[in-house]
Amino acid sequence: MRIIDEMGKKAKAASRQLATAGELKNTALKAIAEALLSNMDRIIEANTIDLENGKANGLTPSLLDRLKLDEARVKGVAEGVLEVAALPDPIGTVISGSTRPNGMEITKIRVPLGVIGIIFEARPNVTVDAAVLCLKSGNAVILRGGKEAINSNKCLTAIMQDAIESAGLDRNCVQLIEDTTRRSSVELMELTEYLDVLIPRGGKGLIRAVVENAKVPVIETGAGNCHVYVDESADIDMAANIIYNAKTSRPSVCNAIETILVHEKIAEKALPAIKARLDEKNVELRGCEKTAAILGSCVVPADESDWETEYGDYILAVKVVSSIEEAIDHIAKYSTGHSECIVTSNYKNAKLFTSAVDSAAVYVNVSTRFTDGGMFGLGAEIGISTQKLHARGPMGLNELTSMKFVIEGDGQVR
Amino acid sequence: MRIIDEMGKKAKAASRQLATAGELKNTALKAIAEALLSNMDRIIEANTIDLENGKANGLTPSLLDRLKLDEARVKGVAEGVLEVAALPDPIGTVISGSTRPNGMEITKIRVPLGVIGIIFEARPNVTVDAAVLCLKSGNAVILRGGKEAINSNKCLTAIMQDAIESAGLDRNCVQLIEDTTRRSSVELMELTEYLDVLIPRGGKGLIRAVVENAKVPVIETGAGNCHVYVDESADIDMAANIIYNAKTSRPSVCNAIETILVHEKIAEKALPAIKARLDEKNVELRGCEKTAAILGSCVVPADESDWETEYGDYILAVKVVSSIEEAIDHIAKYSTGHSECIVTSNYKNAKLFTSAVDSAAVYVNVSTRFTDGGMFGLGAEIGISTQKLHARGPMGLNELTSMKFVIEGDGQVR
Repeated sequence: MRIIDEMGKKAKAASRQLATAGELKNTALKAIAEALLSNMDRIIEANTIDLENGKANGLTPSLLDRLKLDEARVKGVAEGVLEVAALPDPIGTVISGSTRPNGMEITKIRVPLGVIGIIFEARPNVTVDAAVLCLKSGNAVILRGGKEAINSNKCLTAIMQDAIESAGLDRNCVQLIEDTTRRSSVELMELTEYLDVLIPRGGKGLIRAVVENAKVPVIETGAGNCHVYVDESADIDMAANIIYNAKTSRPSVCNAIETILVHEKIAEKALPAIKARLDEKNVELRGCEKTAAILGSCVVPADESDWETEYGDYILAVKVVSSIEEAIDHIAKYSTGHSECIVTSNYKNAKLFTSAVDSAAVYVNVSTRFTDGGMFGLGAEIGISTQKLHARGPMGLNELTSMKFVIEGDGQVR
Repeated sequence: MRIIDEMGKKAKAASRQLATAGELKNTALKAIAEALLSNMDRIIEANTIDLENGKANGLTPSLLDRLKLDEARVKGVAEGVLEVAALPDPIGTVISGSTRPNGMEITKIRVPLGVIGIIFEARPNVTVDAAVLCLKSGNAVILRGGKEAINSNKCLTAIMQDAIESAGLDRNCVQLIEDTTRRSSVELMELTEYLDVLIPRGGKGLIRAVVENAKVPVIETGAGNCHVYVDESADIDMAANIIYNAKTSRPSVCNAIETILVHEKIAEKALPAIKARLDEKNVELRGCEKTAAILGSCVVPADESDWETEYGDYILAVKVVSSIEEAIDHIAKYSTGHSECIVTSNYKNAKLFTSAVDSAAVYVNVSTRFTDGGMFGLGAEIGISTQKLHARGPMGLNELTSMKFVIEGDGQVR
């Protein structure tokens, strides 16, 4: 039997126990938070090995920073675990119910998905974040992190497993695949017998590879080619402020914007005001011909590829459009379906935009940067789904669950 | 450009129109119902060609019967369309909403999935049933039916397209793939650019092939290795009656049972009573040794494969178990997660069974035959999901939808 099959089997067994574990899950979460703090030295030691290997292998400073765990970060992770423990348990929630004409009573109840796989890249804090969200929602988890963080991940997983066991639960609720070759991720993607869902967390390449190759159900996360459309009737200061925030407050994240579409009737006034704000952060503008005609030679000419690109950087594509319909069509063609915003003071256009734009989050006069589990009040987030099946937008604990029907009666037959 | 890409593109365009079509969808559904009746001769003519080809190709009488459309059946299909038209529109339903501390208002709204693919086998009525459920829920659909029904399917699709167009909607809301070779179904399974979900409807082989090979998201339907567990405390008459109903009322369907598990303390009394009922329909019993010891030589010895088999026939596997836990473990090992029942008068055991058994529908003292959209009050059904992601159990109109977040404010930034 392959290691992955053994892990799958153990996860399945653990998930059956977890499905009805109730408050024991919180006992385990609190034990994990404590154990992270009391094993601080051990975690930092393991992480130091990863950091040294990373330096030797020429990782960039920004990758090394993502890899790093210091005392403050571990404390932050432990606090995050306690926050998850404090959330209401989604399992057992009655979603709906009815009594049918023949007297049988149907209740639709929230249950765990079962076994969740998470494939992720360099950040070791994801090991704990993802594991505790799965645990809280009653799911066993099989983690497959990047090779850069393998020592940190092994250490964190061992600490979590001991804590889970100390709470009286099966330590295999959380497992880590220690093989970080491509083979192990392919095996995980094909583990149809044991895995109920696979969630990739990381860059575009990783997510594409998982979506293309997985045989198990996948929830696609993260890609964000987001837009702001500045309507003819927009408040120009508000538009400039939203664009400034959505582009520059954290350009690398998926809810940052990549393209703005500006109505031609407001472009001459709005574009200079928007540029003035973006100049504070030296944002490069790549624009259509009309944009260049208004803003001049500072605009890099945009081509088709600019409308498609998630820059993740201080670069913004700009297009002047002749109508709201053209803006909506542009978004339909190029958006990844993450977050889009209209800045408008026209009621009809606000309604048209929110009904016609088919993205997970559609904003009126609000920055796209709010697409986030915490900001939406979900309490925690495992990622942002850009697919339409099962979950869309920020995924909290409910999105890590399924449901079942319980039907009670006194001998009804059909 | 391949034909399938053209169809995908057209479907996407049609789905954008459909997403906000509102009451026009019902106008189209009523036009379809009328057109089915007014084109009765044309439909029966096309179907006759399929039937003649089927006979020439040696289809079994039962397959020919499934293929057949006569006046009564077409009328039934048309009535079904009107029933779907009469259901409430799921699109635009507000699922939840809140005002966040910064004043922005979040509303979670039901929206269509977009473009749905349906792969199905011989029954031409599925062409209409599936198409109208997709239409009602605001989705464009690409149908890929079996070659046996191709003439009927082409005729029905053309009639629906004309009716849809007459209602002012894009005729490409419904499209049929006319190529019935394996190539076209593989192309559909890989149409990631246009397809939001693919639903296979048909036998085990078809569903397995789609789940294994699709790159688009799939909803797995239909496999039903269902169980009844007769608890120590069961009312024996009730148990026999439920088993008789769940096995014999329609053995070929997915919510019929395949195995019964009987507690050893009640087996000596219960098994003869159960057998007496099943004898009315000459049900073959395949039992464990203990079953044979009680019922005698009429019992065919069961082996491992019997616990795994969905007979779909007048055959029932029987196992005597020493505890409810053994029954639950057996179900966890062999069930396809469709429907399971406990017959009991013990409160604690009823609760244990419903919480520990991880199937779409878990019954207490009710026949498994009720796992059905109509019986559950969903109004219509596109299939029964046996997966845990997105939809589980009978899928009605809501299960053909996704959601989006609409966020309104007055300039909020983060």
